[in-house]
Amino acid sequence: MKNLTLSMITIFIAALFVGCGGEQGSKKSGAMASSAAERTYVAPGEYDEYYGFFSGGFSGQLSVYGLPSGRLFKVIPVFSQDAEKGYGYSEETKAMLNTSYGFVPWGDSHHPDISQTNGELDGRWVFINENNTPRIARIDLTTFETAEIIEVPNSAGNHASAFVTENTEYVVAGTRFAVPSPQKDMPIDEMKGNFKGPLSFISVNPESGRMNLEFQIAMPGFNYDLAHPGRAKSHGWFFFTSYNTEEAHTLMEVNASQNDKDYIAAVNWKKIEEYVKNGGGEKMNVPYAHNVMDEHTHIATTTMKNEVISVDPRDVPDAIFFLPIPKSPHGCDVDPSGEYIVGSGKLSTDLTVHSYTKMIKAIEEKDYDGEAYGVPVLSFESIRAGTVSQAGLGPLHTEFDGKGNAYTTFFISSEVVKWKLETWEVVDRQPTFYSVGHLMIPGGNSQKPFGKYLVAMNKITKDRYLPTGPEVNHSAQLYDISGEKMELLLDFPTIGEPHYAAGIKADIVMKNSKKIFKLEDNKHPQAVKNEKDARVERNGNEVHVYMTMIRSHFAPDNIEGIQVGDKVYFHVTNLEQDYDVPHGIAMIGANTSELLIMPGATKTFIWEPKREGVWPFYCTDFCSALHQEMQGYVRVSPKGSSVPLKWSLD
Amino acid sequence: MKNLTLSMITIFIAALFVGCGGEQGSKKSGAMASSAAERTYVAPGEYDEYYGFFSGGFSGQLSVYGLPSGRLFKVIPVFSQDAEKGYGYSEETKAMLNTSYGFVPWGDSHHPDISQTNGELDGRWVFINENNTPRIARIDLTTFETAEIIEVPNSAGNHASAFVTENTEYVVAGTRFAVPSPQKDMPIDEMKGNFKGPLSFISVNPESGRMNLEFQIAMPGFNYDLAHPGRAKSHGWFFFTSYNTEEAHTLMEVNASQNDKDYIAAVNWKKIEEYVKNGGGEKMNVPYAHNVMDEHTHIATTTMKNEVISVDPRDVPDAIFFLPIPKSPHGCDVDPSGEYIVGSGKLSTDLTVHSYTKMIKAIEEKDYDGEAYGVPVLSFESIRAGTVSQAGLGPLHTEFDGKGNAYTTFFISSEVVKWKLETWEVVDRQPTFYSVGHLMIPGGNSQKPFGKYLVAMNKITKDRYLPTGPEVNHSAQLYDISGEKMELLLDFPTIGEPHYAAGIKADIVMKNSKKIFKLEDNKHPQAVKNEKDARVERNGNEVHVYMTMIRSHFAPDNIEGIQVGDKVYFHVTNLEQDYDVPHGIAMIGANTSELLIMPGATKTFIWEPKREGVWPFYCTDFCSALHQEMQGYVRVSPKGSSVPLKWSLD
Repeated sequence: MKNLTLSMITIFIAALFVGCGGEQGSKKSGAMASSAAERTYVAPGEYDEYYGFFSGGFSGQLSVYGLPSGRLFKVIPVFSQDAEKGYGYSEETKAMLNTSYGFVPWGDSHHPDISQTNGELDGRWVFINENNTPRIARIDLTTFETAEIIEVPNSAGNHASAFVTENTEYVVAGTRFAVPSPQKDMPIDEMKGNFKGPLSFISVNPESGRMNLEFQIAMPGFNYDLAHPGRAKSHGWFFFTSYNTEEAHTLMEVNASQNDKDYIAAVNWKKIEEYVKNGGGEKMNVPYAHNVMDEHTHIATTTMKNEVISVDPRDVPDAIFFLPIPKSPHGCDVDPSGEYIVGSGKLSTDLTVHSYTKMIKAIEEKDYDGEAYGVPVLSFESIRAGTVSQAGLGPLHTEFDGKGNAYTTFFISSEVVKWKLETWEVVDRQPTFYSVGHLMIPGGNSQKPFGKYLVAMNKITKDRYLPTGPEVNHSAQLYDISGEKMELLLDFPTIGEPHYAAGIKADIVMKNSKKIFKLEDNKHPQAVKNEKDARVERNGNEVHVYMTMIRSHFAPDNIEGIQVGDKVYFHVTNLEQDYDVPHGIAMIGANTSELLIMPGATKTFIWEPKREGVWPFYCTDFCSALHQEMQGYVRVSPKGSSVPLKWSLD
Repeated sequence: MKNLTLSMITIFIAALFVGCGGEQGSKKSGAMASSAAERTYVAPGEYDEYYGFFSGGFSGQLSVYGLPSGRLFKVIPVFSQDAEKGYGYSEETKAMLNTSYGFVPWGDSHHPDISQTNGELDGRWVFINENNTPRIARIDLTTFETAEIIEVPNSAGNHASAFVTENTEYVVAGTRFAVPSPQKDMPIDEMKGNFKGPLSFISVNPESGRMNLEFQIAMPGFNYDLAHPGRAKSHGWFFFTSYNTEEAHTLMEVNASQNDKDYIAAVNWKKIEEYVKNGGGEKMNVPYAHNVMDEHTHIATTTMKNEVISVDPRDVPDAIFFLPIPKSPHGCDVDPSGEYIVGSGKLSTDLTVHSYTKMIKAIEEKDYDGEAYGVPVLSFESIRAGTVSQAGLGPLHTEFDGKGNAYTTFFISSEVVKWKLETWEVVDRQPTFYSVGHLMIPGGNSQKPFGKYLVAMNKITKDRYLPTGPEVNHSAQLYDISGEKMELLLDFPTIGEPHYAAGIKADIVMKNSKKIFKLEDNKHPQAVKNEKDARVERNGNEVHVYMTMIRSHFAPDNIEGIQVGDKVYFHVTNLEQDYDVPHGIAMIGANTSELLIMPGATKTFIWEPKREGVWPFYCTDFCSALHQEMQGYVRVSPKGSSVPLKWSLD
């Protein structure tokens, strides 16, 4: 009897340790560990319940994970070259990475957000920001490919982005690093009062998804860090946190942390939209690139634009206000009802929650506590709904489960804290390993969170996995939040720096996922839809190879008459019309990447042969039992050779 | 009672289906599914049992997975640019991608192999081949970084590579696409008898790991596809499969599949080594690049070499023989004892196993069945140990568990088949989903396989996971092979095209894994080890910024006096000496990637400012609670401006 009691206690203690993910305690022998195993296991042939779209952070890409398994399904190239897929290397995709600074091969992607209709996730597109060279991308969730990238001019450190309003009317972009706007050569230490922090509103065409930069608000030169839209009752407003209201320009870790309070900027975008529609705002000349992937040709083109409409916040009465928030707020989150605006002062231990209703009342009553550069500052106590006191150290972000609970991450104390809206009481806390940044609840950015899982995205990994030298992947942790207490289920490593993620119930997206590109819809001007049309044409020292690929040969597969110094364009069409039969093509010594070509698509690479000889090319994606035989040769003769141009297959 | 019986039957049937991974049957409700969940679950804070090093295939990289969890720990950039880590973009790493064809930003990595001592995995290095522009890389398993890449000249389609001998004396490289050697301008259809298939032997320094191309064997112009070393009793030999003994040059899927038998080339490399040491072989002039990452400066340099020793197989008696194998052999595998050489004729249903003992006897007795271009062909029946009959369709590769069993993948019938060495009887078969290529048993390429798990690497994925548009990741399946029958445990998606993998017990590698680079050992000529030495220097229009980073600021963080048209080198040193505290740096509009800099290391990027203004830079890797404050500004003035060069921190 005594033994039994002891083992019961052992199991209880083991279960407790699993709950907090402690290393000592999280043995598989615990009863809950076994349960966690089953709850995260997706058996061979079964499907995950949710898609998780994780930003790549400093990889510049967007990664697709399955939840609850934590398995990585795909890395979608967005802002960075990807040699694996030929993205940013093939002639068709290079233009996606054009900017007003020229071709930029890398980006820093931070915040994915899924398109919404009536405040609910509709699963049509994912938007994601680029932080370093400010841009916003739209990823099409029928193809899981980047469809469009628009540069955000006048901005710097595009961090408060890319969040969408509840009918995807707008996707926004902020300016984290205040800059002269327009840019000009001036002393850095004259920053104060002379820099700006433009907030950009980019409209989204409801049919095509096409983006257009409608207007920028020339805000005071603070650092605008994060943003969330109003929703439901507060639809029509957008909220942006700011820090560095000190307007410091050096040793910011000290100098930007002086003020007791910074601000959330509340923007009534409907008012500004109306103002601009009526001719308000000032036209500014500034270059920016707009890159669009044509869905019929699969060719990206860049349009250089050079004009934006800039709105001075002082010119639109009752449209923009500052809400005070203690100590350098980072996250800015709005609950599903639209009533509560949570500001996470990252150097505060308290969480301040403001009330939308009270904010409106304070605006009506002009209940101000001063102003900053002409923008009214609302009275802190008048708009405050409540405070979650002493919740933890270093609050960063909050998401919601749709059942009246909020979940906030604390970076310094490494934990997720669950608290109740309206009573502001803390009801649970769970440690994270280590130093959690964002968290994600699928649908957590909408009126209808799914509320079953929570993913903590941790900044430090250290000893969580087998070591891989000085550089270790980042790490996420999956919690079950369906019960009263959060339960840690799984650690899974993540690639890049998953800064933030957006999750959605799988069935909303998967039913629209394309399997192939229809060959008949391929409008690529160099497409060849039939082997008999495959050919090689010379135009001066430019040679165009119009090639096809099908299991398991290229047409043509023998080419002669190429000369050293030629510029050879391989336009290659994959004739397959079956799911999951891509082919690849690579040529020895080419100074570019392979092409990975989906069924029905055409892609192009350039080869500039440097030496005479007979040089092979081959299929790079194992396609059939005779994949190894899918190869060909190109004969390269000296410049000016009389070897005639010819090509053949068998 | 009847109900109970029915549900027992249901469970039994469900368990059976899980065993074969059928979609219908693999519900979590099955008893075995639960067991599989527990056996693949690695609880938060616990470690996987094995490292799996998976080739990236057409990504050109090497991925590190944990087994049995199937979690991706790291992608090590090897042959392709990686904007996430700055690999191939930073000034220090660009040289790693130099070749005799210039800078090549992409590669196709196929076969990783772990270094061995006395026929057992020692976990020091992973070698991996590049198929397209023939190269071999060495990855250091203390840092998990690419340490060296050597180009393989005269070769094309470097597929039969990078396999190591049992004391890592050599790593080999084959020529999959026969080519003129040396290269020359000649008609493709005169290939027969005029092309060659050089086999390269690259020595590995036992202390430093440094590679050197010792000799090439100028084999007849067949396609050398895969290779494995002899081991134990057959140590000193290397075996290479060949196909296209027809020497076809077009429509290979038909024309290279005519002969009833192709060959395994058996190479007595010890004899050739001796021959070359004694002055044998012919010097050939041919350029190739040798790129080495200096471990003290962390700077890669390229040495262009221009000479190799070529050996005519006819000049070294009794060193090279052909072993006949039915129908286009692909895989070539040697069992742990070194006695059995398995050739997988991919268009055959039988597996032919040759005997090393019989081979030696046939050589001694000159038991030949003709010759090919002067290389004796051994008599098929004299050397054959046995045949695994009617084992499946499309055999590709075989690995061993060290307990007398062999496991062969069948691409066309999509299965793994377990059979017994010496009796050649099939004892188990398990379906794979779908179209399996390689398989991997940790240690399966050594005298001491670990024999617990088997990973099938599948070429087709289709419906195994939530769909992600036309392009889906590849897929692997994990089987438990510790019992008599194989058990499918887990499906996990894999990035790139994991062509092959090498696995090793974790403890062999993890104990040597470095956590940081010691600042005192940093010999980078532009390193700054102390904030007070941070500075900016101008030399004409070249500006060098010597910068430091530590939580959470750069020094300097304000720089003035830069001009449009300058070429600004940022040499940035991470002063941290804690594990898992990298910092990154990026500059708006730079036409390169970020730098991701490990503790104690220095890296460099170039920025060529195009416009006047005040431009921010920032830390790209979330490093502390004040990471958002880790930023600085550079003032850019017009060309010829009199604004003096100055820099500061606070």
